Amino acid sequence: MNSEFDSSKILLDFGKGDGLIPTIIQDYYSNEVLMLAYMSKESFELTKKTKQTWFYSRSRNELWNKGATSGNFQEVKEIFSDCDNDTLLIKVKQNGVACHTGKVSCFFRRII
Amino acid sequence: MNSEFDSSKILLDFGKGDGLIPTIIQDYYSNEVLMLAYMSKESFELTKKTKQTWFYSRSRNELWNKGATSGNFQEVKEIFSDCDNDTLLIKVKQNGVACHTGKVSCFFRRII
Repeated sequence: MNSEFDSSKILLDFGKGDGLIPTIIQDYYSNEVLMLAYMSKESFELTKKTKQTWFYSRSRNELWNKGATSGNFQEVKEIFSDCDNDTLLIKVKQNGVACHTGKVSCFFRRII
Repeated sequence: MNSEFDSSKILLDFGKGDGLIPTIIQDYYSNEVLMLAYMSKESFELTKKTKQTWFYSRSRNELWNKGATSGNFQEVKEIFSDCDNDTLLIKVKQNGVACHTGKVSCFFRRII
């Protein structure tokens, strides 16, 4: 645990209007960046409580527990907020793959 | 280069309204996630052209070349888009530190 501050005092900034915070998911073991999704306060609390990732789908307007359909659950190892508390980084043990295409990571399209 | 598709055909989704795409910055060598910022089409084109990162500041409403003030430039090594082309991942050689607080990464606040 980082000893520089009291993590319970971190006040997260859940978006300018939409109530969502972008959340980077990184593989705890390989450090590969797996995906980015959005959390509402409710999905963030569920994530902390269950130690599995829960997101808020902007297209379906609903909470989703990653892996509930596919079985590819993400077990939460560490959660960090950034310097201005408007982004989260969560390190996970990824069961199976992260991407709905079947790729390990959603970032498989190389531009440069 | 990923040979599965023609990267010139990737059509990025620059946001629902604000014209911005969230961009994860990762250290090319250590794989540490350094920061998340937002790119407009213009800053993305400048990033590709100059091989340094350019972002769009939502608070100042202006383009910024990361490092122009601090000297902590980010040299672009690789750029990826995600499966639905609405997030970017850029791997960089970070000169100095990424965070304005002086930390290497902006994600230094551990919650769990």
